[in-house]
Amino acid sequence: MSTQRYKCLVQYDGTNYVGYQIQINGKSVQEEIEKALKKMMKGQTIKITASGRTDSGVHALGQVIHFDLPISIKPESLRLAVNSMLPADISIKQVEKVVDDFHARYSAKGKKYIYRVDLNRFADPFKRFYTLHHPYRMNEDNLALALSKLEGEHDFTSFCSTRTDKENLVRTVYVAKVERDEANNELVFTFIGNGFLYNMIRIFVGTCLQIADGLKKPEEIDRLLEVKDRNAAGPTASGKGLYLVDVYYDESFKENL
Amino acid sequence: MSTQRYKCLVQYDGTNYVGYQIQINGKSVQEEIEKALKKMMKGQTIKITASGRTDSGVHALGQVIHFDLPISIKPESLRLAVNSMLPADISIKQVEKVVDDFHARYSAKGKKYIYRVDLNRFADPFKRFYTLHHPYRMNEDNLALALSKLEGEHDFTSFCSTRTDKENLVRTVYVAKVERDEANNELVFTFIGNGFLYNMIRIFVGTCLQIADGLKKPEEIDRLLEVKDRNAAGPTASGKGLYLVDVYYDESFKENL
Repeated sequence: MSTQRYKCLVQYDGTNYVGYQIQINGKSVQEEIEKALKKMMKGQTIKITASGRTDSGVHALGQVIHFDLPISIKPESLRLAVNSMLPADISIKQVEKVVDDFHARYSAKGKKYIYRVDLNRFADPFKRFYTLHHPYRMNEDNLALALSKLEGEHDFTSFCSTRTDKENLVRTVYVAKVERDEANNELVFTFIGNGFLYNMIRIFVGTCLQIADGLKKPEEIDRLLEVKDRNAAGPTASGKGLYLVDVYYDESFKENL
Repeated sequence: MSTQRYKCLVQYDGTNYVGYQIQINGKSVQEEIEKALKKMMKGQTIKITASGRTDSGVHALGQVIHFDLPISIKPESLRLAVNSMLPADISIKQVEKVVDDFHARYSAKGKKYIYRVDLNRFADPFKRFYTLHHPYRMNEDNLALALSKLEGEHDFTSFCSTRTDKENLVRTVYVAKVERDEANNELVFTFIGNGFLYNMIRIFVGTCLQIADGLKKPEEIDRLLEVKDRNAAGPTASGKGLYLVDVYYDESFKENL
């Protein structure tokens, strides 16, 4: 039977989920989307594939998934149908018909994440699920230097959860930077790379905040890239500050960095 | 026994509360703050007084409360102590010692509220508790005209819940306007007045959106101010888009409108 492949851009508030991927210990984003598709398909199971997992509490502004349907349906109609069956914390932002060899994970050329830090002395009640609260005085020059050292092609073993199932831990980070959002009194990290390992950005942030706080020197990054030991790096920062912003399927994203 | 009066600026995310005021049917903001003060005072009950109630789901960026303590404590120390005992969705933003005749409600000269409307075709998952979703094409000229008709001193009986306990329903609205927040694809209403009746702003918004949608003409506002009948006005818009932004204790706020 011939099928049509669809690519969807998905936003979700990860607060109430165990993560993107189906797990036995709680509600997942994947499960909710598959449930919505199954309802739309009158009981037929549709498997979806995402660009990658996101952890518990992690948000997405631009997660990408693909799936095949035995029917051809207008993208906007599909979007309307699925959104009407999804819970309010997940929303399909865009639907496209794509060729059968498009693959949300394998076709991805790069990803962009941001990580938001609430700098208010007392945590902002409206940001409690959307930022990490870190109200300490920081050395921003050391922070910028540390981040610049993460850019480039490296073996990121020190910045990868030991629970990874990957063998090759070499990745290229194109952008690792931080900006102050004065209006919101936030620090916003941006990371763009050809791929990120399990917990990689959260360990980047946990380690860089230690450097910003003066607990470690920026040169610690050089040593961590050298020693390839997760236990040598800083803590894994909370998932709630992390957002998957973009998944790139065309190498041209590198031209605008 | 001599006491010291304290004035506090309070922020809260109203999502998980039945409203500001203590009620038998659920958790209130007042109850949480009084519990925190009681803990700080080693079991002594401290009654707090706010500038006014906010309904279920309504948020505050600048609610004001006062209370008396039998001790004198530095404002920043008090802030730290209370915040450390409050849940994450309530935060004391500022503490001041005030004179004994300052009263959070009776001394108030005016208030400012905003109301946020999410214009996205599909509701933004991150705004589901913080905006009203209203994705319809609107006549913004008619909306602006309707709002301007609300400004001034009027008997607002048509815009007040019949459950009010007030007798005098005349209030002065200094500002009733709406602006587009293009970056967030929101419509943001601002209302500033010398006082607002029970549900008044939510009925303003419910009625004005009907006018914006073309269900009623802007001149309907003139008629509503005339007939003094709650049933003639539009619906009470959801509390979740509403924010108490400022309470003014000095008439000088009128100079900067």
